[in-house]
Amino acid sequence: MIKTDDVLKLDAERLWIYDTTLRDGAQREGLALSVSDKLKIAQHLDQLGIPFIEGGWPGANPKDAQFFEQVRAQPLTQAEVVAFCATRRPGLRAADDPMLQPVLAAQTHWITLFGKSWDLHVTEGLKTTLDQNLGMIEETIQFFRHHQRRVIYDAEHWFDGYRENPEYALATLGTAIAAGAEWLVLCDTNGGTLPHQIAQGVGAVRTWMQSQPQVTKSVQLGIHTHNDGGTAVANAIAAVQEGARMVQGTINGYGERCGNANLCTLIPNLQVKLGYNCVTPAQLATLTSTSRQISEWVNLAPDDHAPFVGLSAFAHKGGIHVSAVQRNPRTYEHLDPEWVGNVRRIVISEQAGLSNVLEKARHFGLTLDKQHPASRAILHRLKQLESEGYQFEAAEASFELLIRAALGQRFDFFTLKGFDVHCRTQLAGEASALDSIALATVKVAVEHQEILTAAEAQGPVSALDAALRKALANFYPVIDQFRLTDYKVRILDSSDGTAAITRVLVESSDGQQRWTTVGVSANIIEASYQAVAEGIEYGLLRQLPEGATTHDALLVAIAHARSCPLMSVDASPAILGL
Amino acid sequence: MIKTDDVLKLDAERLWIYDTTLRDGAQREGLALSVSDKLKIAQHLDQLGIPFIEGGWPGANPKDAQFFEQVRAQPLTQAEVVAFCATRRPGLRAADDPMLQPVLAAQTHWITLFGKSWDLHVTEGLKTTLDQNLGMIEETIQFFRHHQRRVIYDAEHWFDGYRENPEYALATLGTAIAAGAEWLVLCDTNGGTLPHQIAQGVGAVRTWMQSQPQVTKSVQLGIHTHNDGGTAVANAIAAVQEGARMVQGTINGYGERCGNANLCTLIPNLQVKLGYNCVTPAQLATLTSTSRQISEWVNLAPDDHAPFVGLSAFAHKGGIHVSAVQRNPRTYEHLDPEWVGNVRRIVISEQAGLSNVLEKARHFGLTLDKQHPASRAILHRLKQLESEGYQFEAAEASFELLIRAALGQRFDFFTLKGFDVHCRTQLAGEASALDSIALATVKVAVEHQEILTAAEAQGPVSALDAALRKALANFYPVIDQFRLTDYKVRILDSSDGTAAITRVLVESSDGQQRWTTVGVSANIIEASYQAVAEGIEYGLLRQLPEGATTHDALLVAIAHARSCPLMSVDASPAILGL
Repeated sequence: MIKTDDVLKLDAERLWIYDTTLRDGAQREGLALSVSDKLKIAQHLDQLGIPFIEGGWPGANPKDAQFFEQVRAQPLTQAEVVAFCATRRPGLRAADDPMLQPVLAAQTHWITLFGKSWDLHVTEGLKTTLDQNLGMIEETIQFFRHHQRRVIYDAEHWFDGYRENPEYALATLGTAIAAGAEWLVLCDTNGGTLPHQIAQGVGAVRTWMQSQPQVTKSVQLGIHTHNDGGTAVANAIAAVQEGARMVQGTINGYGERCGNANLCTLIPNLQVKLGYNCVTPAQLATLTSTSRQISEWVNLAPDDHAPFVGLSAFAHKGGIHVSAVQRNPRTYEHLDPEWVGNVRRIVISEQAGLSNVLEKARHFGLTLDKQHPASRAILHRLKQLESEGYQFEAAEASFELLIRAALGQRFDFFTLKGFDVHCRTQLAGEASALDSIALATVKVAVEHQEILTAAEAQGPVSALDAALRKALANFYPVIDQFRLTDYKVRILDSSDGTAAITRVLVESSDGQQRWTTVGVSANIIEASYQAVAEGIEYGLLRQLPEGATTHDALLVAIAHARSCPLMSVDASPAILGL
Repeated sequence: MIKTDDVLKLDAERLWIYDTTLRDGAQREGLALSVSDKLKIAQHLDQLGIPFIEGGWPGANPKDAQFFEQVRAQPLTQAEVVAFCATRRPGLRAADDPMLQPVLAAQTHWITLFGKSWDLHVTEGLKTTLDQNLGMIEETIQFFRHHQRRVIYDAEHWFDGYRENPEYALATLGTAIAAGAEWLVLCDTNGGTLPHQIAQGVGAVRTWMQSQPQVTKSVQLGIHTHNDGGTAVANAIAAVQEGARMVQGTINGYGERCGNANLCTLIPNLQVKLGYNCVTPAQLATLTSTSRQISEWVNLAPDDHAPFVGLSAFAHKGGIHVSAVQRNPRTYEHLDPEWVGNVRRIVISEQAGLSNVLEKARHFGLTLDKQHPASRAILHRLKQLESEGYQFEAAEASFELLIRAALGQRFDFFTLKGFDVHCRTQLAGEASALDSIALATVKVAVEHQEILTAAEAQGPVSALDAALRKALANFYPVIDQFRLTDYKVRILDSSDGTAAITRVLVESSDGQQRWTTVGVSANIIEASYQAVAEGIEYGLLRQLPEGATTHDALLVAIAHARSCPLMSVDASPAILGL
């Protein structure tokens, strides 16, 4: 039971979180967002309670303009969607700069305007004068204020600029305040500043602001950090401790080079550890699912080792360690995983003891206690399989099947009779290019009925997977929805070279959830078969209602099979070529 | 050109880096190290200039004892290998605790002993009294000192302990000092402490030490941090700024849950940004290759976005940004990538890399300069292959063959005509055990003469390797001395499951030296063939005298072949069964 007081004090001071996943996050190599991805992410961030969501730079990119148009059609519940843009170009009046019109057309209440703070960038990058740059900042802000927009001023390269020419860096901020910006966000654009330097820089601005007569209480400081020195999160924290009240970052730390400050790390640190009010406790408890959901949408593998939200963030190995954590989680946990919507995970490993097995069974919803005769049998089998090279840390679905087998709760959806895989590689034409093809045949039995199928693919494992699905899809049509989503190979004891043991991990998905299975053999094809076959078995198991028996499962399959008499039509030996 | 003064000041104060990749790093889920992996990593860390390398816990694990035995046979050049262990058990005398004997047997100069600092862990974890725990720390250190070992004392959970019971936490340190420990390493074991709390804790210990009469100048402070709050690197920096002089961490931040402090991030921050002396400038310039080499050995995909050493750490996208960086790298780079052995990468451009190619060619003893027409051709080919998934960081033999091909210095020892690999798996008997066999046939040509051979093995790659050797051994008898010594598989872009691209790295040996080759294909068997075949080619190349031509090589082969007319006797189609 989460007590609100643990994660949000009544008198907590407010911090404004500003998400730039959709703009700065999308700069990450390999990350591309469609307009509908951006809309889904914005809605999710709105539900997470993020008050400012930067949507993009309207005009710089046709997709961004579309996003702003579409997000107006489905308004968010609490978040402000913010448009981003640069100061007007040198030599143009703001009203004449065509770049600024699409920004107004986005119809946001808030606009984040970025400008140059570092003299080097003004003279070498923009090729203009320091005074001209001040004019660009001033007029662009005035232009937006004139159109009733509220302005967040992102001071690009602020810390580098302050280090080299502090007077000028401060002058740019003074200009922004005078022109009507409500937030001054100090940016560590190149990402190499360390926490103590951030603290000095923010502290200097605060002191300077107190000496400026034009600064009203309504002007506040923000921070925008990058992770090039590996300290983006610590840098943002240092800035908050010096008085910054807006924190810019991205979900999962996406961003160019080494990424932006990771909001999934920052929010729990700021709220739970430092006592600020960022989101509600209920919203904080959706942080883990937000992180994973967004990684699915952007199609990047989640970082299992990410603080707070990673799959391994609260994973515990080893017997004594596990029993200590079960007696008192504080012994090995810096924070209650429930607060951020994550779970404690007892890792099944070489050091596993009985307590790990029981904890896992509970997690799978299976009834098992220390006295149950199966408990010792499972532990024994686990140790034996681990000594053969199996590893269940990352293959929880295979481990659940192992427990079920000991409890007599595993279903014989199908039985392998054998398979052949044939790879042929030949010189293609005159160039020395190689041309490869793989062909697999599989024979399986479902309730004494044998099915022989074959399939071709580029590689042997794809071919085997395709042939097995083909054989079973007639009995279990739901298999058509299963997909292999990840495949990992590890050679164990590799000092024997290619005769060594191969361990294969296969991740499968039914479009909603993912599960991982393992196979081990001296033969990589056989190891792959084991993992693929258990992946299918586990997927089928998830389709059965609670309390179903093997018999129930087979009845469904056989009933279906009788209506599909042609299921093994492709099993002609001529096609197989073997 | 790197100026030493940029990366190491003459008057820089020394910091001692302590690597625990082999022990704490190996706690990461999915990371398993063989003894030979550990030896290779230790040698690499030694070359990187790491002064302390923690090898493992002798006795806790048979592999760790073997490691210490084997590392003594091939001593490191500068690093101290350190054994790790816990304090004696409650109720035993140190001399009677069988756990401590294997630690002595490891024969290291230094031992890192960890003990409990947090009262909660003493009473709830160890189930003993606070006084007993002090006795355990004292006697274990005295025991090791009596056996002429030097002791690093790792104060586990120190920051949590200090927060809850500062008097007791300090008492454990006082005990360790009095018993003869030379280093006190404050550990944030649960990883959730923030930088300002670390600074307070380290500062408090320093103040306390100044008040303790028994503390001599030879007792120094160290720091050991974990990344559960996302601030492990910043925490270590904060501790150094408060006087810690030993920094413990792991390569690539490997470690359980969210990992340990990442040394690949810490070393450049400490040395280049904060001005400490950690390693030499030449060693610092190997940091990127060390990071990637070790990620290959542990078979975990490198983090492309890792600070300093990631593939994207100095990547710049098109347009103004790129030209600004080319005019003045400081505009968008926080540090010169060369200092850490990384390169600026202009995305979609071939600007970077020529100097690397020339450097590599020099390394291989091949004559090549910027003006040579082959230089650009090699770079172009390299970029093309990298875009297909090849990677030459860990496959230098393949890279040398690539350069030689461009220079017309590659020898056609043999030409592949094609191969077939056939795997059959069937149910063996009544039990559900599977029985697998793999058969490979290979057809190669040596100087227009075709040879067809076949071989059987447990797995398809072994069979293919055996068939190829058999085909060639009659021409090149030296092949009998070659062995595959390592084989690694990585699936690239694994979101496509088994249809994804496979990269295979093969390490070969002639009994004296080892070399690594790479193959890439959508078909794992073809990728393996490429790597195995290049491994044999490279081994043969090494047998030729300086200045030999293809013609010389073939003459030798053909002369030999004429004396062995039965070389393809096993090529009967009946045996092949195909």
